[in-house]
Amino acid sequence: MDKIAVTLPDRKVVEAEKGISALEFIKTISMKLYKEAVACKIDGVLKDLWTSLERDCSFEVVTFSSDEGKKVYWHTTSHILAQAVKRLFGDKVKLGIGPAIDNGFYYDFDVEESITMELLEKIEEEMQKIIKEDLKIERFELSRKEAVKLMQEKGENYKVELINDIPEGETISFYRQGEFVDLCTGPHLPSTGRVKAFKLLSVAGAYWRGNSKNKMLQRIYGISFEKKSELDEYLKKLEEAKKRDHNRIGRELEIFTTSEVVGQGLPLLMPKGAKILQILQRFVEDEEEKRGYLLTKTPYMAKSDLYKISGHWDHYRDGMFVIEEDENEVLALRPMTCPFQFLIYNSKQRSYRDLPIRYSETSTLFRNESSGEMHGLIRVRQFTLSDAHIICRPDQVEEEFKGVLDLIQYIMKTLGIENDIWYRFSRWDPNNKEKYIDNPEAWEKTENDMKNILDKLGINYKEAKGEAAFYGPKLDIQFKNVYGKEDTIITVQIDFALAERFDMTYVDRDGQKKRPIIIHRSSIGCYERTLAMLIEKYNGAFPLWLSPVQIRVIPVSDNFNEYAKNVARILKENGFRVEEDYRSETVGYKIRDAQLQKIPYMVIVGEKEQKENTVAVRDRKKGDLGSFTIEDFIAMVKEKVDKKVIE
Amino acid sequence: MDKIAVTLPDRKVVEAEKGISALEFIKTISMKLYKEAVACKIDGVLKDLWTSLERDCSFEVVTFSSDEGKKVYWHTTSHILAQAVKRLFGDKVKLGIGPAIDNGFYYDFDVEESITMELLEKIEEEMQKIIKEDLKIERFELSRKEAVKLMQEKGENYKVELINDIPEGETISFYRQGEFVDLCTGPHLPSTGRVKAFKLLSVAGAYWRGNSKNKMLQRIYGISFEKKSELDEYLKKLEEAKKRDHNRIGRELEIFTTSEVVGQGLPLLMPKGAKILQILQRFVEDEEEKRGYLLTKTPYMAKSDLYKISGHWDHYRDGMFVIEEDENEVLALRPMTCPFQFLIYNSKQRSYRDLPIRYSETSTLFRNESSGEMHGLIRVRQFTLSDAHIICRPDQVEEEFKGVLDLIQYIMKTLGIENDIWYRFSRWDPNNKEKYIDNPEAWEKTENDMKNILDKLGINYKEAKGEAAFYGPKLDIQFKNVYGKEDTIITVQIDFALAERFDMTYVDRDGQKKRPIIIHRSSIGCYERTLAMLIEKYNGAFPLWLSPVQIRVIPVSDNFNEYAKNVARILKENGFRVEEDYRSETVGYKIRDAQLQKIPYMVIVGEKEQKENTVAVRDRKKGDLGSFTIEDFIAMVKEKVDKKVIE
Repeated sequence: MDKIAVTLPDRKVVEAEKGISALEFIKTISMKLYKEAVACKIDGVLKDLWTSLERDCSFEVVTFSSDEGKKVYWHTTSHILAQAVKRLFGDKVKLGIGPAIDNGFYYDFDVEESITMELLEKIEEEMQKIIKEDLKIERFELSRKEAVKLMQEKGENYKVELINDIPEGETISFYRQGEFVDLCTGPHLPSTGRVKAFKLLSVAGAYWRGNSKNKMLQRIYGISFEKKSELDEYLKKLEEAKKRDHNRIGRELEIFTTSEVVGQGLPLLMPKGAKILQILQRFVEDEEEKRGYLLTKTPYMAKSDLYKISGHWDHYRDGMFVIEEDENEVLALRPMTCPFQFLIYNSKQRSYRDLPIRYSETSTLFRNESSGEMHGLIRVRQFTLSDAHIICRPDQVEEEFKGVLDLIQYIMKTLGIENDIWYRFSRWDPNNKEKYIDNPEAWEKTENDMKNILDKLGINYKEAKGEAAFYGPKLDIQFKNVYGKEDTIITVQIDFALAERFDMTYVDRDGQKKRPIIIHRSSIGCYERTLAMLIEKYNGAFPLWLSPVQIRVIPVSDNFNEYAKNVARILKENGFRVEEDYRSETVGYKIRDAQLQKIPYMVIVGEKEQKENTVAVRDRKKGDLGSFTIEDFIAMVKEKVDKKVIE
Repeated sequence: MDKIAVTLPDRKVVEAEKGISALEFIKTISMKLYKEAVACKIDGVLKDLWTSLERDCSFEVVTFSSDEGKKVYWHTTSHILAQAVKRLFGDKVKLGIGPAIDNGFYYDFDVEESITMELLEKIEEEMQKIIKEDLKIERFELSRKEAVKLMQEKGENYKVELINDIPEGETISFYRQGEFVDLCTGPHLPSTGRVKAFKLLSVAGAYWRGNSKNKMLQRIYGISFEKKSELDEYLKKLEEAKKRDHNRIGRELEIFTTSEVVGQGLPLLMPKGAKILQILQRFVEDEEEKRGYLLTKTPYMAKSDLYKISGHWDHYRDGMFVIEEDENEVLALRPMTCPFQFLIYNSKQRSYRDLPIRYSETSTLFRNESSGEMHGLIRVRQFTLSDAHIICRPDQVEEEFKGVLDLIQYIMKTLGIENDIWYRFSRWDPNNKEKYIDNPEAWEKTENDMKNILDKLGINYKEAKGEAAFYGPKLDIQFKNVYGKEDTIITVQIDFALAERFDMTYVDRDGQKKRPIIIHRSSIGCYERTLAMLIEKYNGAFPLWLSPVQIRVIPVSDNFNEYAKNVARILKENGFRVEEDYRSETVGYKIRDAQLQKIPYMVIVGEKEQKENTVAVRDRKKGDLGSFTIEDFIAMVKEKVDKKVIE
């Protein structure tokens, strides 16, 4: 038999029989790895363990411990889920898609019966059976014609649609386990028995292909692990995360609410939430003014003419809300502020002496998110972005970029979240030209310039291909929510394309008209999303300066209501946000209630305080702080508010 | 011949021949009135002067000096305009409508040729001819069938449409002057020669029937007077008004701009305008917070389901921007805030102890105004309203209404416009049931209650039938723009209907669920409109506390730039809005420029100031104020800003 040379990650070269399966080969090098392997990489490409080694290659075992390994494991679990649902519903169910995601997997089903929690248990039982059967999972390829025929025979019309969308020349592959066959690029575990511990978590509606014009399918989410103990630990963490979920705390603390008749992704900020946003907005607008930004206030809609110039009509129309007024005028809600501020720039001829111009706006934007993606305050259809565009000369870009980062870092630090964020350098994807303005040279130059600035500033970033804006690369500032889901909180972009499209110019020192460079940036991000992050970070107990209620005044009995009112009045006159509790309840009850509301200070007044003209102060975290004169208490709190202290 | 008894306004009874024309009758009582009469009132009804007196009646001569008289005069001038255009264009023009308005008249034409200023002159020449011909203007009536036939013969399809919309049983009348015939209810002057002095002022586009789905017609505006001297005076005033028009000053001072590609009624606030709005918004939000309002921030769109509950879908749909997402979800931009704040109220059960609840919001609203109505910042399609809803018990309405008026009066006074506004009590129109919620008893009770409160508070108001909101009567606060056009700046409404529709309740002292009363109110009105009013009131020279730039620092030469920068830095650190002028221009030029920009203070620094550590201060109105130490200057300006002094 022929031999081949297989190079392992430690550079060791092992001889193997030509045609041996990856799984068998791993057995020859380590029984431990043989048990742990979920897939492998042959010459750097992720493959099934059934793949046979046909020539000299590099080889790597992929286990559950890696992100790639987890995704293979979860993807296989999603196939087991689909197989179980098919066994239970037969022809009554049509399959959508079923990928692995950051935290597990889902599968979309078109089935009339509404999937309840009881039904999920029945599906789980069927999945256990499939795992016990330990069905071999095998890949096979078909021609487009054969593939369509197979899926038509099975009545899987969504799969037929997917096959028809596969570009000409690409391989069309399927996976089979027992009686179940699914269109899939893989890879997968070698058999169903490899899935050890799993749990179906929830059901949600999801439009086919994320488009609200299509049918709403039922999406089942799940997770799986190699050990029952790992699953249990995960579920416990999930329970704890749910308790910290802003979507729960935010409602409990009356920060926001939602309504069926208003619609998804359109939260209503209640007085406490609106107050926090007002505080944040004033903080950001004042800080930006100090740093030379000029505020604008531009309309939330415009004719399609504007978006045709900007390119949004071509590159982003699906994400926009369009109002068809009549054939003369199509209006659309704006998904970004840039074109509006560019028009203000263009309202007169600018000179090199005028630059940089920094336009900022507390800007409402609208994006037509698909229903499956919306979540609390994090992903919504209307949001308020601290948006700005710096229009500058090429020689000013580096200094301005530095200024932007300094502002962002100052704001993150003031909010106390500087250690909860990290940087991502988002580049374009030259293989996905439709998504981007087609100018490879400009992309290369701008990405290099941006990389140089980042490196010079010593920014520690991850790179991400295909995450750029359509008009240029981005520096994204990332965070994770309580469930570990990553999202972008702030972006900074260098734009080489839109000044040209909007014919923006400045007259340079030499009298020539030249194109400025544009930096698109946020400073605190989208207020709603940042608020969500703050709720989760502080578990609802906001820093004093951000607390919608800072002090609650509690008289120990009705006899001291007058004194309490006087104290409250003085505190309000000193600019604090104060609540008063005159209910006929015990002091203990009132204190517990104020603690639950996470109010920073409780001011308790009774006979002693009234006589001595003092207040007894209780801190939500440190408990009893003892007796203060009103003046001393005001001075202490004022200092902490002014310094925006985080405790 | 038979005689009739005609009672004049001074109660005098005059005998007249039965069948005498009003015109001839006037001749018998006063030659002066005969010359001045433009129409008459017979038993209180406005009539043509050709009307014959057939029975005993009361009689009043209407002259140009009254509003009604002016409208007759202007209406006839609009017919002369239409006749002239028909003579010039023949079959190539179709007539729209041509009413008198508050300041003259207009007529809409469907004609391919674009009406230029040169063409207006030609039309004016033709109108002069028609006046010289002194054609008799006669009324006649036709049956619907005859009326349609007549207009079809003349090819006037718009008139046919109007005739078809006249309700069954109503008289269909026409006016004829020479070869020209127009569908019209009149009345008119007795002959074309009675128009002495007129002027065509402008041309604008206007959709047929104000609906953007219809064809855009060309609207010619004009004015006329009895004397050339009156016309000249009017035109002079108009020129001066134009200079004070916020739509001109606002652009010159870079407060706002507009863009063809954004669309009509969607102004872009430039940094100076956005700054004023920010100052006003903070002033209003802080004042409202002091007065116990709770801020909310609710979404700008919702599903049609919400507007169906509120009644806006039935009563206001034409004014709304609708987004047809798909058959499951129709979203619309909100025309008002009320339903959203009601949902926040309904997010939990409220008790009598919780009331009154005062929800306020700096609220963006959208109304689909027709293109002819849009004007600068006064009438726009997106605006920001200081909106609030007070939800209270019936026993609290009077006190709350009083509080609302106190707030409004405080704000108007602080803006310095308390003498530029007046009150209008806007009632429903029982004959126009489609426009209103059909509950006559509730209307009567609420209007009486409101009237009682207004009278008790000693508010001096005008009444206006048919100007109520669809759900209740309003107190409107009115103003006039530079052209004398009246508009509403603020409204306060008492609402007896929506609490029922939204099933809003509170648990009363007796444990029973009851309906609250709702007061809808603004405090500063719509920010954009109020800004327009302030621009016109102050001719762009805003009070110090509202000025987007408060101080401009001017070094007398480059030698003092460093000192100037230091002065500017200190002023900025003290919270003032400061500009610096380092251009290589003379001091005189720089001062003139600052004056043109209407900046309250110019701080001029040269050798003397640098040596003495002082500043030379110039006031935009009072001129040179002499030398100040920086501390003294800061103290003086600070006091005026803090007190919101108007000079």
